[in-house]
Amino acid sequence: MTSLTLVIGNKNYSSWSLRPWLAMKQMGLEFTEIRIPLYQVGSSAQVRRYSPSGKVPVLLHDEITVWDSLAILEYLIEQFPALPWLPLAAKPRAIARSICAEMHSSFANLRQHMPMNIRAYVPGGEVPASVQADITRITTIWHECREAFGMGGNFLFGAFTIVDAMYAPVVTRFITYGVQLDSVCSTYAEAILALPAMQNWIAAAKHETETIESYTNPPN
Amino acid sequence: MTSLTLVIGNKNYSSWSLRPWLAMKQMGLEFTEIRIPLYQVGSSAQVRRYSPSGKVPVLLHDEITVWDSLAILEYLIEQFPALPWLPLAAKPRAIARSICAEMHSSFANLRQHMPMNIRAYVPGGEVPASVQADITRITTIWHECREAFGMGGNFLFGAFTIVDAMYAPVVTRFITYGVQLDSVCSTYAEAILALPAMQNWIAAAKHETETIESYTNPPN
Ligand SMILES: N[C@@H](CCC(=O)N[C@@H](CS)C(=O)NCC(=O)O)C(=O)O
Ligand SMILES: N[C@@H](CCC(=O)N[C@@H](CS)C(=O)NCC(=O)O)C(=O)O
Repeated sequence: MTSLTLVIGNKNYSSWSLRPWLAMKQMGLEFTEIRIPLYQVGSSAQVRRYSPSGKVPVLLHDEITVWDSLAILEYLIEQFPALPWLPLAAKPRAIARSICAEMHSSFANLRQHMPMNIRAYVPGGEVPASVQADITRITTIWHECREAFGMGGNFLFGAFTIVDAMYAPVVTRFITYGVQLDSVCSTYAEAILALPAMQNWIAAAKHETETIESYTNPPN
Repeated sequence: MTSLTLVIGNKNYSSWSLRPWLAMKQMGLEFTEIRIPLYQVGSSAQVRRYSPSGKVPVLLHDEITVWDSLAILEYLIEQFPALPWLPLAAKPRAIARSICAEMHSSFANLRQHMPMNIRAYVPGGEVPASVQADITRITTIWHECREAFGMGGNFLFGAFTIVDAMYAPVVTRFITYGVQLDSVCSTYAEAILALPAMQNWIAAAKHETETIESYTNPPN
């Protein structure tokens, strides 16, 4: 019997935590969740009990510790190879990995200007060109995947994969900040939001009471 | 017969290109190299011929395109599973992946303040606290790996793995900017620099003639 525990931050704010959490729920893996509200007195010390980088998410699998969202996902792919984490065919699989890695290392402007804040609804703000460039790249990726690989399902590669988990926090940001989407992108966003696990995460975020100032009033 | 081509940027400046290039050389894979000097007139259009993200590195494997350094490495691990890309035992393998992903998404302050510039030697500059924090985290990682997993070789997990490829550009930065290292870290840095493939990359960087202003005079 193997035991999985995922250490996460606030559901309202922690975009990196949402990624492996959603992927694991969608794959039907059972796991214990440890939620640590971030940026409170004592948060850092609590996170460091689990995480060598001082950041969440962290996965504890029996005596193994894996940190960083993308490493957690690659680790799970190897440990549970029968689950449909990624497309199986080499070409879409390679593109899926490229898009996950691009999400992991890019879009700093979007992330800084439009931090995840599920409870908030603040449309209509000014969108700097650098943020618009990130939005354009992301919606281009969504279009290209839906067109080339989306048949047979509502997600980027048809059925749900980790790529959708990587982009799920972007979906909530587009709603929070009122980013206008065309019909391909809004249909995709609705498919993400309709996932029972996503509904569950959003409901929990709305019940949280802690606030993080830097996420609520992002720098402009 | 399968054909591998790696599209890279300037060897003097393109830290992301060095990572898969070095890993592929160390694993003994034969590949064609296409070098595109960045930030010159026409560079972007040339990169976009190969790369959907507009960035290098990009790997072309027969009819498959993979972009982003970390996705390229994970793709190669799956395609050439017999090669020693990562430690085999689950625990060091999980930590190796965590450290690669941490490099991929972190250390923005170090990357901005000390861009890779192999030809340059500019020690003694002021090191802001945010950059020092990145340096401290990296040297902590090096210490922990060398102590826990380094026996049987000179690299972070003993024999060379992709983790060393991910941190190789940091080694050149520490030299360029004269970052003082203790004996564990400087011995490790020397092992990276002594690799024939690394020597080959550095020699080529020194022969390049293009300069990129934003890398040569980083913002302070
Ligand atoms: N590259 C990491 C990023 C993790 C990250 O930045 N986590 C944030 C929360 S979403 C965090 O732990 N912040 C707390 C801190 O930095 O003190 C990953 O992909 O997991
Ligand atoms: N996350 C990407 C980063 C790639 C990247 O930023 N590449 C730089 C050169 S090192 C580049 O192509 N810059 C050209 C540009 O942005 O126009 C990776 O890991 O491959």
